[in-house]
Amino acid sequence: MRKTKSFDLRSYMEAGKKEIEAGLDGYLPPETAYPESLHKSIRYSVFSGGKRFRPILCRASFEACGGKGTCIMPVACAIELVHTYSLIHDDLPCMDDDDLRRGIPTNHKVFGEAMAVLAGDALLTLAVDLLVREGAKVLGAERTIGVLEDLLHAIGSDGMVAGQVVDMESEGGGVGAETIEYIHSHKTAALIEASGRCGALVAEAGEILITHVSEYGRKLGLAFQITDDILDAEGSFGTLKAGVSLDKRKQKATYPDVFGLERSKQMAAHLVDEAKDSVADMGAGALPLLSMADLVIRRLF
Amino acid sequence: MRKTKSFDLRSYMEAGKKEIEAGLDGYLPPETAYPESLHKSIRYSVFSGGKRFRPILCRASFEACGGKGTCIMPVACAIELVHTYSLIHDDLPCMDDDDLRRGIPTNHKVFGEAMAVLAGDALLTLAVDLLVREGAKVLGAERTIGVLEDLLHAIGSDGMVAGQVVDMESEGGGVGAETIEYIHSHKTAALIEASGRCGALVAEAGEILITHVSEYGRKLGLAFQITDDILDAEGSFGTLKAGVSLDKRKQKATYPDVFGLERSKQMAAHLVDEAKDSVADMGAGALPLLSMADLVIRRLF
Repeated sequence: MRKTKSFDLRSYMEAGKKEIEAGLDGYLPPETAYPESLHKSIRYSVFSGGKRFRPILCRASFEACGGKGTCIMPVACAIELVHTYSLIHDDLPCMDDDDLRRGIPTNHKVFGEAMAVLAGDALLTLAVDLLVREGAKVLGAERTIGVLEDLLHAIGSDGMVAGQVVDMESEGGGVGAETIEYIHSHKTAALIEASGRCGALVAEAGEILITHVSEYGRKLGLAFQITDDILDAEGSFGTLKAGVSLDKRKQKATYPDVFGLERSKQMAAHLVDEAKDSVADMGAGALPLLSMADLVIRRLF
Repeated sequence: MRKTKSFDLRSYMEAGKKEIEAGLDGYLPPETAYPESLHKSIRYSVFSGGKRFRPILCRASFEACGGKGTCIMPVACAIELVHTYSLIHDDLPCMDDDDLRRGIPTNHKVFGEAMAVLAGDALLTLAVDLLVREGAKVLGAERTIGVLEDLLHAIGSDGMVAGQVVDMESEGGGVGAETIEYIHSHKTAALIEASGRCGALVAEAGEILITHVSEYGRKLGLAFQITDDILDAEGSFGTLKAGVSLDKRKQKATYPDVFGLERSKQMAAHLVDEAKDSVADMGAGALPLLSMADLVIRRLF
């Protein structure tokens, strides 16, 4: 792992989180909107203490590609809504059956399973709606369609949902290197890669820059999921996955299962280095991206 | 109920069904696309014998508004994918808990609950993806964004999902006229209204025509759900809802519960007449719309 030039990542992430949350609050229907139960359920999960890693990465990529202003906000917030929808559905009893997420009860534990299914459905719809309505206003129709193409490809039946399916089908073990890479690339990395790419698309970056941030997002996203696996394997549930259903989690295919703990750590560190290499030539504007990459691997130390 | 000029609706619907199904087949990833289980699950529900009422209505509205050619196909097919996603999720054990739909086992009965959740998620994503990718090619970015705005509004947390939430929360009875109208307008009529409106939008119809077909869709959609309620109440499960979990269905808020059977029939017939009135001045091109309206009420006789 190489060091990154001094950069106050903590302040950057905190400021980013605040701005993203203000954006989300403004875009989402209020809790008082009918049916209140649905909007409460939606807001419960959206404002449940996420780090806003993906939307902050999206904006960092936008700025690294020369983008300025707030036109990235609908895109960044839509990505966070997609992420939240995926978490609510993943936590369902028929899926990962998790009782807690980020230290608080999961959506279906509070609002019931049916509402959790519907809140997830509504969030995916709201995410696209946000792009179509607010996004199109500031980006124009053409650019919005471009962003949508990219995002939808990342999260559909050849993207995030595909990763989830293969993950589910691989429970119980016996999974090889190719399959575990497929799962993590699709389940986790695809949306992180899209966060980077969409930032570049909104900034109207050229092909070369788009390739750089895509590569960055793909490598970093994979490293992100591998470090999650490692933390789970090492039992660091207190920090990250408080209350995760251990039995369920243990059946999941993970990098440490396939490659062992040490090799998984090396792979994660190597991927983070590769992610940083991808954007190393982008100048000072890419400092947040470099620093966010360090954040992913720092969780292990 | 007034009669409509002679029109061979049966041939029209059959031809429409064939064309829509060819479109769906072309747009959807093949069953052999990885992960095969997901794509099998998706195709199982999409090709499970639906009448294709919504996409045919969408195209009929498009043509009634002067639209020509096949540019309506991505929109019509996207609407059917949205409809299918909503059925898969509605049938889940935590929702309506239905074992059969259209006489065959529901998605989760065949593929399991987790896959049914994910197939629904993938279908909603694929529906938007179809509009963004194929729709934008033939309609251009501006028109596609317009269609998306309309469709998403109809199916989100203030549309179809909202109707589903209130429906679920109203189980057990004690529901008033206003609530049951809200449920049916949102759960069922919103997507049927959007089918009509989107047809008009793609045809680049003027405001007046758009209002006409919207009104038509709204009234007809409400009539559609009321006749469903009536058929359920009369126990015509053989025709329409073979294998529906009777207990569950009985707890649902319905028009016959609130207004009685006879008044519900009158209301449905009146709504169909109003729907037809809305498009009565649109000339010969609106014949399919008029005839499709008759189809809804004819189910009762």
